[in-house]
Amino acid sequence: MEKKRIVVLGGGFAGVYTAIHLEKLFGRKSEYEIVLVSRDNYFTYQPMLSEIIGGSLGVYDTLSSLRSLLKHTKIYVREIVEIDIADQSVILSPNFNHKNLYLKYDYLVFGLGNVTDFRNSPGGLHEHAFPFKNLSNALTLRNHLVDVIETAAIEEDPELKKQLLTFIVGGGGFSGVEAVAEINDFARSMASQYDSIDPKSIRVMMVHRKERLMNKELSESLSRYAEKILRKRGVEFLFNDELVSATPMEAFLASGEKIATSTIVSTVPCTPNPLVETLPFELCSGRIKTDETLKVLNSPNVWALGDCAAVPLGKDSFCPPTAQFAVRQAKRAAKNIYATIHNRPSQPFQFKQIGMMAALGHRRAVGELFGTIKLSGIFAWFVWRFVYLWKLPSLKRKFKVAVTWLLEVIAPGDAVQLKVQPIYGMSHLHYAEGEVIFNKGDVGDYLYVVVEGEVGIVTEKDGIEKQIATIKKGEFFGEMALLNQKFRTAKAYCQTSCDIVAIRKQDFNILVTSFGDLKAHFEETEQARLQEQIDQFRRKKEQIDAGNNDLKAS
Amino acid sequence: MEKKRIVVLGGGFAGVYTAIHLEKLFGRKSEYEIVLVSRDNYFTYQPMLSEIIGGSLGVYDTLSSLRSLLKHTKIYVREIVEIDIADQSVILSPNFNHKNLYLKYDYLVFGLGNVTDFRNSPGGLHEHAFPFKNLSNALTLRNHLVDVIETAAIEEDPELKKQLLTFIVGGGGFSGVEAVAEINDFARSMASQYDSIDPKSIRVMMVHRKERLMNKELSESLSRYAEKILRKRGVEFLFNDELVSATPMEAFLASGEKIATSTIVSTVPCTPNPLVETLPFELCSGRIKTDETLKVLNSPNVWALGDCAAVPLGKDSFCPPTAQFAVRQAKRAAKNIYATIHNRPSQPFQFKQIGMMAALGHRRAVGELFGTIKLSGIFAWFVWRFVYLWKLPSLKRKFKVAVTWLLEVIAPGDAVQLKVQPIYGMSHLHYAEGEVIFNKGDVGDYLYVVVEGEVGIVTEKDGIEKQIATIKKGEFFGEMALLNQKFRTAKAYCQTSCDIVAIRKQDFNILVTSFGDLKAHFEETEQARLQEQIDQFRRKKEQIDAGNNDLKAS
Repeated sequence: MEKKRIVVLGGGFAGVYTAIHLEKLFGRKSEYEIVLVSRDNYFTYQPMLSEIIGGSLGVYDTLSSLRSLLKHTKIYVREIVEIDIADQSVILSPNFNHKNLYLKYDYLVFGLGNVTDFRNSPGGLHEHAFPFKNLSNALTLRNHLVDVIETAAIEEDPELKKQLLTFIVGGGGFSGVEAVAEINDFARSMASQYDSIDPKSIRVMMVHRKERLMNKELSESLSRYAEKILRKRGVEFLFNDELVSATPMEAFLASGEKIATSTIVSTVPCTPNPLVETLPFELCSGRIKTDETLKVLNSPNVWALGDCAAVPLGKDSFCPPTAQFAVRQAKRAAKNIYATIHNRPSQPFQFKQIGMMAALGHRRAVGELFGTIKLSGIFAWFVWRFVYLWKLPSLKRKFKVAVTWLLEVIAPGDAVQLKVQPIYGMSHLHYAEGEVIFNKGDVGDYLYVVVEGEVGIVTEKDGIEKQIATIKKGEFFGEMALLNQKFRTAKAYCQTSCDIVAIRKQDFNILVTSFGDLKAHFEETEQARLQEQIDQFRRKKEQIDAGNNDLKAS
Repeated sequence: MEKKRIVVLGGGFAGVYTAIHLEKLFGRKSEYEIVLVSRDNYFTYQPMLSEIIGGSLGVYDTLSSLRSLLKHTKIYVREIVEIDIADQSVILSPNFNHKNLYLKYDYLVFGLGNVTDFRNSPGGLHEHAFPFKNLSNALTLRNHLVDVIETAAIEEDPELKKQLLTFIVGGGGFSGVEAVAEINDFARSMASQYDSIDPKSIRVMMVHRKERLMNKELSESLSRYAEKILRKRGVEFLFNDELVSATPMEAFLASGEKIATSTIVSTVPCTPNPLVETLPFELCSGRIKTDETLKVLNSPNVWALGDCAAVPLGKDSFCPPTAQFAVRQAKRAAKNIYATIHNRPSQPFQFKQIGMMAALGHRRAVGELFGTIKLSGIFAWFVWRFVYLWKLPSLKRKFKVAVTWLLEVIAPGDAVQLKVQPIYGMSHLHYAEGEVIFNKGDVGDYLYVVVEGEVGIVTEKDGIEKQIATIKKGEFFGEMALLNQKFRTAKAYCQTSCDIVAIRKQDFNILVTSFGDLKAHFEETEQARLQEQIDQFRRKKEQIDAGNNDLKAS
C-alpha cells in the first residue's frame, strides 16, 4: 500500500518548523510520508544574516543543512514549477536530466515566504540596488563592499572615489537598520587599513519613508536611541524620503535629491511569493487567506502559514510576517494536520508577541520585551545574542556559533572577497537622462542594446562635439570597439532615461561565433554606419566645393 | 620627487612572499614604492584547499586578505591586460569605470604561477571536467557534490542514479590524491544520511597515467601505502590509463573504457600563465628562463620565480613548481632586488627540498622528509597538520585554523550547498556520437546551437522512430519548445561527436526581447520547419492517394 503524502512547500522558518513538528507527531514508522520542497538544501537563520556582511560570522554559521534538521523527511531540493490544486499535485523543476518531477499530495502546506521583488519598482532599482533578504544577497553585498573599498583605495579621480565611498541603505525597518549598522562598521574598519582613504570621506546614509526608524516595530524612545547610536558612528539619516530610482552611478530620492554612489541597498520591496498568485485561493494583498486554524479557505487538506499567509489574529488584524510568528504557527499547523488526519477538531492559532530586538553593531542593540520592558545598549546586545543563540536550531550549530563569536573577539575577521563563480552573460542597466555610458578612449568591454529610450553617439574633433547618431529602442551600439578597436572612438550618452542590456565582450564573442548570421548582421550594420559617415563627409565636401565654385563663379 | 616603483605580479606564494620580504628589506619609509598586482584580494593557502571540499575547514579559513599580510604595499586587485617590457609598463583591467590602469615600473617581478587550462585538451574536458586549482574550484566542486548526492537520493531511474553516484578524479599526483581522498570521505559520509542511497552503489575512481600514485613525488613504498589506505575506504584505481574526453554523462578513458558519471575532476593540465607567452623572453616549456639569481635572461630589472619561471637548480635541471620552492625563491629574489638597487652583487638561489607530504583524509597522511625519513599513518597526519599550520601566514589565521580543526572533531560540518550567484548565460557542451541531448517529452529548458558536428532530430509515432531533420554546424535546434511548447516533441541525438552551446530559456528570452531581428529570424525558421513537415505529410498523402488511385485504376 502506498503511503499517504504530506507535502510542505518552502525551506524557511514556516516550512522547516512545520516539518520538524510533523516528524515529532507522526514518529518514524508512520503510514504518512512527509515531504519538504526547498530551493536550497539548507535552512538560513535569517536573524543573523547581517553578521555575514561584517564577517563576524562565517559563511556556513547561519546555515543548517535540511537533512540534519529533518531526519525522516524526504527533501526535494528543487524549484517549484507549478502547483495544481485540482489535481492535488506539485511539479518540480528538473536537475541533471530534463524531466520535471511530478509529486502527488494528500495534504499540502504552504510555507513559501516572501521574495524581494524590484520588478515593479520604477527606474533601475531592480538593476542597481542590492536586495538584502537571503544568504546569497549578504555574500554578494559583502563582496561588493570589499570591491568598492579596494577600488577606492587606488582610484585617483576624486569624483569616482567619492562615489565609491558613499553607501545608501533604503528602508529603516529592522533588517534595514541591522544592515546599515553592519555596512557602516565594515566599511569604516576596512577603509581604516588604507592610508589613501580619508575616513571623513566615507558616507553611509539611510533613507527612510517615515520620520523615525523601525516605526512599526519599536516605540519612539528606543528608535531615537538607535538613531543616536548610529549617528555617533557616522551614519547619516534622511527621513520622510525614499529611493525612487537608481543608475550605476547615482541614487535618486523622492525629494529630488541625487546622490552619487556605487552601493545602494534596498530592504523594502518584499512581496508574497509569485507562485501564490496563480492559485485558486482567496488572497489578501497577495497572501493566502486562512481561517484561524491555518487552513486555507474553501480548500480541503491545504494549510498556509508564515509570510505567504494571511492568518487572522484577533479581530480585523493579521499575524505580522516575522519569524517569531512563523515558528509558532508551524507548531499549530502540524498539530492541526495531525488532528485532521485523525478526525479530531483543529485548534485556533493564538500567540502574543514576546518582543522585538535589533542589533546595532559594535555590541549595541535595542529591544522591547512583552510590550513593556525596554532594553538598550550593551545589555540589550547580550540578551539579543543569547536569545538568538538559544533559538538557533541544533545544538551543534549553537556551539559553533558561540565559539565563532568568542573567536571574533580575539581574532577579528579579514576583509576577504570571495569570487565563487565568474559572472557571465548579460546585465541590465538603467541610466538617467544625460548620464554618460562611455567616453571616447574608454576600454571597449561591452556591447549595448537599447531596450527603452534613446542614446546619442557623439564624436569630438579639435574640442568640438558633434552628434553622429541616435540609437533607438531595439538597436545596438558599441559594437565597433568589439570588432575592431580596443578603445571607444566616440562618446555614448542618454538623451532620455534609458534601459539597456550590456553584453560582455567575451560573451559577445561566443554569440558571434555561435550565430553565424548574427555576426554578418553586425558587420553589415557596422559597414553601413561607416558608409553613412563617409557619405556625410562627401556631401559636406561637395557642399563646400559647390560653395567654393559659386564663389569662384560669382 | 616620484618614488621608484617595484611591481610584483601575482598574488600566490611567489608574489606575496616576494612583497613580504621586500617590505622587510626596504622598511616603511623607503623611496621605493612596492606594488602587488593580484586577481583576488586574498592569498589562498593552497595546501589546505582540499579540506574545503569536505568542509573540515570553513570557506575563509584558507584565505588571508592581502592587506593584512602586506601593510606597506600598494595592492591592485585587477586583471593584467598587457605587459610592455620595452615601455616598462603594465596595463590593468578597469573596475567601476571603463579606463584601463597604466602602471609604470622601474623593477618588475613575475610571480604569476600557472593556470589550469583545458583548452588544448581534446573533447569535452574543458566543458565537463572540474578543475581543482583555486578556492573557487574547491567551492564549485563541493556544491556540485552536494547537488549530485541530493539528486541521487530522490532519483528513481537506476541508471541516472548510478551515474550521479560515480565520481572520477584524473591525475594521481599530490593534489589529485588529496582531492580523491576528500571527495571519497565527503560523498560517503553525506550519502550515509540517506536511506535511499545504498553505500555500495557509490563509486569513487582515480585514473592515473602511471602505474602508481604520486610517482614523481614519493617513493614506491609510501605510494603503495597511500593506495592501500584509499582502497580500504572504497577508492578504485585505474592505473596506466587517462581521461581523454568527457560529456555531460560519461567519461572516456585512453584504454577505451567508458564510465557513466556526472562528476569528473581533473587535476592534470597545469600550463604556465598565458600572459608569459606574449613577452620577448626566452621560455622553457612555457616558463620564463632566469639565471641562478632569478633574474630574467637578457632583461635588466626583471625577475621571475615560482611556477611561471624556469629557475636552474644544480646542473641541467630546474626547480620544481612547488610552494616550498616559491617561498624560498621569494626571499632570495627580494634580497637580490635590494642588492641590485644598492649596486651590490646578487646571490644564486640554492635550496634543498625538505620533504613532501600528502593528506589522505580521515586522519591519515604520507610523507618523506629530507629524502630519507618516511612517515605514514596518523603520525604523518599530525606532522602534516603541524607543518602546514606553522607555515600558514599570520598568527591570527594560525589560531583560527587550529580552533576550526578542534571544532571539527567535536562538531563535524554540515553538507550545505552554497549558491552564491545564479549562473547565467551560455554553457558549452560536448557530446559523444550517439548520445541523446533530449528526449521527446523532456522539459524545453534550453535552446541549442551546433558549434561542431551533426545532430539528428527524431520523432516517434506508434513506436516507429523517424529522423525528420539533421542540424549542422552553425544551426540551432530546440527553439520550438521555447517559443510554443513546454515539452520537447522530438528527440535530439548526436550523429557525430558534437560541440554545442546551450542557452538557458530565461537568457534566450532576454536575447529575443533585446534583439528584435533575432526573434523574427527564429520565428521564420520555425515556420519554415513546420511548413516542411506539412509538405512532407502532404507529399506522402498524395503518394498514397496516387497509389490508391493506381490500385483502383488497375
